[in-house]
Amino acid sequence: MDKFMIIGERIHCISPVIRKAIEEKDLEPIFHRAKEQIDAGAHYVDVNIGPAERNGEEVMTWMVQSIQQKFNNIPLALDTVNRKAIEAGLKVYNSENGKAIINSADAGPRIEMIDLAGEYGCMVIGLCAKEGIPRDNDERMAYCTEMLERALGAGMEPTDVLFDPLMLVIKGMQEKQQEVLEAIKMMSDMGLKTTGGLSNISNGAPKHIRPILDAVWCAMAMQNGLSSAIINPCDVRLMETIKSADIIKNNTLYADSYLEL
Amino acid sequence: MDKFMIIGERIHCISPVIRKAIEEKDLEPIFHRAKEQIDAGAHYVDVNIGPAERNGEEVMTWMVQSIQQKFNNIPLALDTVNRKAIEAGLKVYNSENGKAIINSADAGPRIEMIDLAGEYGCMVIGLCAKEGIPRDNDERMAYCTEMLERALGAGMEPTDVLFDPLMLVIKGMQEKQQEVLEAIKMMSDMGLKTTGGLSNISNGAPKHIRPILDAVWCAMAMQNGLSSAIINPCDVRLMETIKSADIIKNNTLYADSYLEL
Repeated sequence: MDKFMIIGERIHCISPVIRKAIEEKDLEPIFHRAKEQIDAGAHYVDVNIGPAERNGEEVMTWMVQSIQQKFNNIPLALDTVNRKAIEAGLKVYNSENGKAIINSADAGPRIEMIDLAGEYGCMVIGLCAKEGIPRDNDERMAYCTEMLERALGAGMEPTDVLFDPLMLVIKGMQEKQQEVLEAIKMMSDMGLKTTGGLSNISNGAPKHIRPILDAVWCAMAMQNGLSSAIINPCDVRLMETIKSADIIKNNTLYADSYLEL
Repeated sequence: MDKFMIIGERIHCISPVIRKAIEEKDLEPIFHRAKEQIDAGAHYVDVNIGPAERNGEEVMTWMVQSIQQKFNNIPLALDTVNRKAIEAGLKVYNSENGKAIINSADAGPRIEMIDLAGEYGCMVIGLCAKEGIPRDNDERMAYCTEMLERALGAGMEPTDVLFDPLMLVIKGMQEKQQEVLEAIKMMSDMGLKTTGGLSNISNGAPKHIRPILDAVWCAMAMQNGLSSAIINPCDVRLMETIKSADIIKNNTLYADSYLEL
């Protein structure tokens, strides 16, 4: 099987550093976080510019071009609900080292993002949700199927949709964890690719516990077929876990130095 | 589901300290290792006296009585191929805090250990093997079924057999890992309990990597239903992983302090 795909989450306008950098058109902090993540092993860098209602097209164009030019056309996930900004980013995107990912479509109002992915021949994250959190796996799988059909209708390969079952916070939704893991298994058994925002899992937990919970959840999810996640690749414990799970799944060949690779 | 059951492996005659303590009838090093493991969270303490052909009955009787008297009748796994030594240990065993575990039976020459478990109303580890390593999961499941039938014939509850699929070293048998994990899933789906010597996994790997590989494998196995393992409970990373997986499986209730419990 393919190696686990790591999408680095650290260029996100929720971070004051990044928000300021976008406002001031200051590339230095953005490059710094891109480099950090690429060095740590990110295969994709997520570029979250927020809703960016005013100047989304301009910001996304600038971000995509700047980061790709600086980092040898590193593949990117374009992350905003602003459809026009996504499209502007896709127009200047260089897919030499991997298709762009649209982050994200859902089975509700954002289903058209799938059509956009079809049009531009890129990938798209498909949130298995319509309004709020899916009630159960019947809903998750229904939304998954709706998005899959839409993708096929748009001429996409099924594996160009990364289905996100919606990872839920343990603190408050502990009893839902196995359901989400089961959804990953069902999708994986259908031959579909999966992803999600892993750090949701440990939201609200004490700081020293978060990397532990995230890492263990990730190992368990990888056993169930999870093929990708949106994570902080600078989290050493999580990265050690992903590399080890790739060894145990026989996705990469064991060598005594595998953690350093 | 039940919490993961931890069997502490550190009283083992392969350790020079323990071998010497047994030879010299010196309880101090044995008590030290028992305490360390109980403090770290072991539910059972394994007592491995080796083949002990000469004086096995005497040694096992002494070990069982001494450790149980010192540590409030902590449950023990009696670990030797010497059947008479096992039986001597069972005769003095106090099951107030949990049935004894015989470590171990197999589907070959040691299948009679199951009869012994039936006779004494204790538990038994059932190695899914006859001669050497099982070729594949067809063999594993055949051996599992043979032992299960034997146990039922001996009047045991199916859950009083802890089936050990035989955990295999990654370095050299990397491509077998998913098969072993799949065997755990099959047995677990049948409602059976499973266990095994987890540190086999990382045998021969560099020292700093072993706890990482063991922990990730354990999380993946717990997702597949592994219900117990024979481990070093003083391995902090592994214990953090087991506690976290128990949270994710909803076996124990989340609290911010769950790692300290």
